[in-house]
Amino acid sequence: MKHFSIDKIQGWERFFRANFVNSLSGFKPVSLIGTRDSNKIDNLGVFSNIVHIGANPACIGFINRPKEAAPHTLANIESSGFYTINHMHSDWLSKAHQASAKYPAEVSEFEAVGLTPVFKENFPAPFVGESHVQYALELSEIIPLKINNSFFVIGKLLHAFVDESFVSKDGLIDLSKASSLVSLGIDAYYLPSPVKRYAYAKYDRPSSEIEL
Amino acid sequence: MKHFSIDKIQGWERFFRANFVNSLSGFKPVSLIGTRDSNKIDNLGVFSNIVHIGANPACIGFINRPKEAAPHTLANIESSGFYTINHMHSDWLSKAHQASAKYPAEVSEFEAVGLTPVFKENFPAPFVGESHVQYALELSEIIPLKINNSFFVIGKLLHAFVDESFVSKDGLIDLSKASSLVSLGIDAYYLPSPVKRYAYAKYDRPSSEIEL
Repeated sequence: MKHFSIDKIQGWERFFRANFVNSLSGFKPVSLIGTRDSNKIDNLGVFSNIVHIGANPACIGFINRPKEAAPHTLANIESSGFYTINHMHSDWLSKAHQASAKYPAEVSEFEAVGLTPVFKENFPAPFVGESHVQYALELSEIIPLKINNSFFVIGKLLHAFVDESFVSKDGLIDLSKASSLVSLGIDAYYLPSPVKRYAYAKYDRPSSEIEL
Repeated sequence: MKHFSIDKIQGWERFFRANFVNSLSGFKPVSLIGTRDSNKIDNLGVFSNIVHIGANPACIGFINRPKEAAPHTLANIESSGFYTINHMHSDWLSKAHQASAKYPAEVSEFEAVGLTPVFKENFPAPFVGESHVQYALELSEIIPLKINNSFFVIGKLLHAFVDESFVSKDGLIDLSKASSLVSLGIDAYYLPSPVKRYAYAKYDRPSSEIEL
């Protein structure tokens, strides 16, 4: 294995460094975040730095880049308090990727890229109709991160929409049945396949496989 | 698609709810975090709630559960200020999963599960010798999260160890060549395969594929 020191990494050209560092931490649960502004213009953006925080209360976080780089999603979440997260899939990946472009505020990315805004359960932000796994969040807290002026946005789960056939008998959603993608770095997409599932680990017994 | 409201989800049995909510947000970059305590006992734990924060400075965050649930890793990071993150792979997955068991503080999980602690570049925390993608962090900030008493731990990248053959000409590390795994929910593991890579999206042109 080759050693890359931070001094070496910091000296690299900007895009090379971004690709390397962005992929070093692993594959990411890439999704589209849907919001609506006070003029009822719908916004859609690609986000991959999404993280599970806890199941009770059910809460999920994501990193929003500094405001000058990615303003609309965060502004809409701040003003409305609500947003949706929608998994991405191979069959409409080029449309979804296009939603990562910076469109003017008065343009709805749904219309621009050709995806369908869907409203349901009186939730005030748009879901992506084409997505097989959709969930809705209420803003809980926005934490500014000193290290690079990005934001850690924490939401509480309010609704989930999933095909029941993906949900196994103990609650696991088999996202390979949903063909949910992961992303790598800034612009690469991968599809995960099942490997193994294990029983809860205890220190006084070896790992044992369970059905996946 | 079936609608699951938060009222319904909150009423579920605890493990069913944990499996469902934990998989809803997507596949996760599962890794082993290596630390060393002040008595030079090495600790290893499985962490999947890892998130890229930024490339300049290069920084990565992870969620650490409340202290009573997962005390050793966080205590060692607080006292030493340093830790390693190491990707997991199929060929030693049962050993890695076993590191998620709660061992007594005086036991090194490396020894207990049969993985190899490696020290290099004078870094004070152990790397996992069996891992094909290893990186080392210096603690930057620990942010307590009010929503569930967990912690958002932010580290600055100091070293990366990667086989050069995995690094593409523009810096992307092809983690499918490294056979790095993702996890789903609490205990399921998946292997991603390449789908597509796209050029940087601009609003005035359609998505265009690039070589992956």
